[in-house]
Amino acid sequence: MDLDFKKMDGLITAVIQDNASGRVLMVGFMNEEAFQKTVETGFATFYSRSRNKLWLKGESSGHRLVVKDIATDCDMDALLVKVEAIGPGVCHNGYESCFYRSLQDGQWIETEAKTYDPNAVYGGSK
Amino acid sequence: MDLDFKKMDGLITAVIQDNASGRVLMVGFMNEEAFQKTVETGFATFYSRSRNKLWLKGESSGHRLVVKDIATDCDMDALLVKVEAIGPGVCHNGYESCFYRSLQDGQWIETEAKTYDPNAVYGGSK
Repeated sequence: MDLDFKKMDGLITAVIQDNASGRVLMVGFMNEEAFQKTVETGFATFYSRSRNKLWLKGESSGHRLVVKDIATDCDMDALLVKVEAIGPGVCHNGYESCFYRSLQDGQWIETEAKTYDPNAVYGGSK
Repeated sequence: MDLDFKKMDGLITAVIQDNASGRVLMVGFMNEEAFQKTVETGFATFYSRSRNKLWLKGESSGHRLVVKDIATDCDMDALLVKVEAIGPGVCHNGYESCFYRSLQDGQWIETEAKTYDPNAVYGGSK
């Protein structure tokens, strides 16, 4: 009954879903250490593939993800993490969810308005 | 505005969510061809990493996923596909969702009952 970190070079997919609304907010990756940190601290923690290090979501923005439930799938290589999202949005581009564009007639169209100014939160950097 | 298939050896993550209930049903992977098939046919099509080929979800079970909406995330390396799921369950183990186990006191506990008999549908194989 252990998670399978072997299929993807030590990582598993973590889908983050708003516990109240059911909205999918983002997808990240966790290695075993990030998963343990998530369980121990109660705040979603990822492994950043671009920065090659653990990443406590909200460490710079304050927009932390408070874990309410963690489920795994049949193959035990993915997680569904239900959270309460602190702050106005999860996406570093200023939206509530990272999934703010939908496919319409072959084009990716923004389907919602920003919920905050990312430059004010991140100071122009991620 | 193109999807980024480069980060994960030609694959992107595809989160499948029930369009009516908001429940996350499964996570799969798509290569560019699977994504195009999904868009063209209106049925979710994945790339099977274990079988190294395209996989029309429901091709053996009949449990197809009718696409209602496709969104992408800020990095364009993940998809959120909202579907109407045909049949009693998406998971080949007999459950409505592949995420049928939750973490409780360090153990993965089944949190729901099966919705169908997988042996009757799959004949004992996947």
